[in-house]
Amino acid sequence: MLRYPRPLQRVIEELERLPGIGPKSAQRLAFALLKRNPADVRALGEALVALPEAVTRCQECFNYAEGELCAVCADPGRDRRLLCVVAEPADAMAIERANDYRGLYHILGGLLSPLDGIGPDDLTIAQLVDRVSRLQPAEVILATSPSVEGDATAEYLRQVLAAAGISNITRPALGLPVGAELDYADQVTLVRALQGRRAM
Amino acid sequence: MLRYPRPLQRVIEELERLPGIGPKSAQRLAFALLKRNPADVRALGEALVALPEAVTRCQECFNYAEGELCAVCADPGRDRRLLCVVAEPADAMAIERANDYRGLYHILGGLLSPLDGIGPDDLTIAQLVDRVSRLQPAEVILATSPSVEGDATAEYLRQVLAAAGISNITRPALGLPVGAELDYADQVTLVRALQGRRAM
Repeated sequence: MLRYPRPLQRVIEELERLPGIGPKSAQRLAFALLKRNPADVRALGEALVALPEAVTRCQECFNYAEGELCAVCADPGRDRRLLCVVAEPADAMAIERANDYRGLYHILGGLLSPLDGIGPDDLTIAQLVDRVSRLQPAEVILATSPSVEGDATAEYLRQVLAAAGISNITRPALGLPVGAELDYADQVTLVRALQGRRAM
Repeated sequence: MLRYPRPLQRVIEELERLPGIGPKSAQRLAFALLKRNPADVRALGEALVALPEAVTRCQECFNYAEGELCAVCADPGRDRRLLCVVAEPADAMAIERANDYRGLYHILGGLLSPLDGIGPDDLTIAQLVDRVSRLQPAEVILATSPSVEGDATAEYLRQVLAAAGISNITRPALGLPVGAELDYADQVTLVRALQGRRAM
């Protein structure tokens, strides 16, 4: 049976190991790479070779960084009295894209999940407690997802932070997404939106 | 606004340029790469850096190869009296996977498509004519897809090959896919399946 040339086969196999890329997608991507400008393919390859060593974790907030501190922690213009706790770097990036929040972040590195064997020691919770003791922020926002695991992690953090003397602990509002159709909202969201109603 | 570290941003941008990978997928893939074993990420990167120069085109059939000839053309056990013409290397691979065909291939490099400006000179048609003159195959199978462009390309090739003295030119059968439900088949396929009926 015909095998692809080994260098091509190797790229297909390495691509297949990425999440959400099956054998068919890996083959399609590899063929697309072969049709592209060789300089572009090499550029992607070199970027990947450099990636593991070039990207570090911020020693303060555990977001991705290039040196000791990430761009947010190194920015003197950020409000150090506000700390937003999220599960992953992509969550912090989503909040940054909204271009409104000006405080600091803390990346947990995941959510508590006893069934998957992920406990408090697997997340950066001890470092968070140490950090709030040093920073003494006026408010800690627990911006984990409003899912079972996100809610449970937020509740655990609330207890830990309260014990550490932080009194102003908040969580983002639940309600209807902007632009949503009311009659398409699920029941739980609708109940939360009504419970959280505000004076106009 | 927070930017990702430049090496990470660079990987995301290079991934975004691949077909079928949007900004969200590129970000998800880049994060998945950061969580993987650094040696695996470097292995993918090195495979990509090597790809453009390591993979050549077979001088006979234009399939992907590692040297002058692809694995099929270099194999003395293949039946040189049978030539199967396909649009792309992936088509030849699909036929190889079926593990039945034992002849040679010819990769056109695409299909005729006047609207996209792809004419006979953009495909390996002159090389095909030269090759059948040398090989004098007993049969040429035109295995382009049964689509508008695939049918038009096959018809064009039939005329060119007939003029070059090849009399036994065939095309794969049209009919119901194995395992299909008859009442889900589209009308055109059903008509072709009935027209092509065979004695049991």
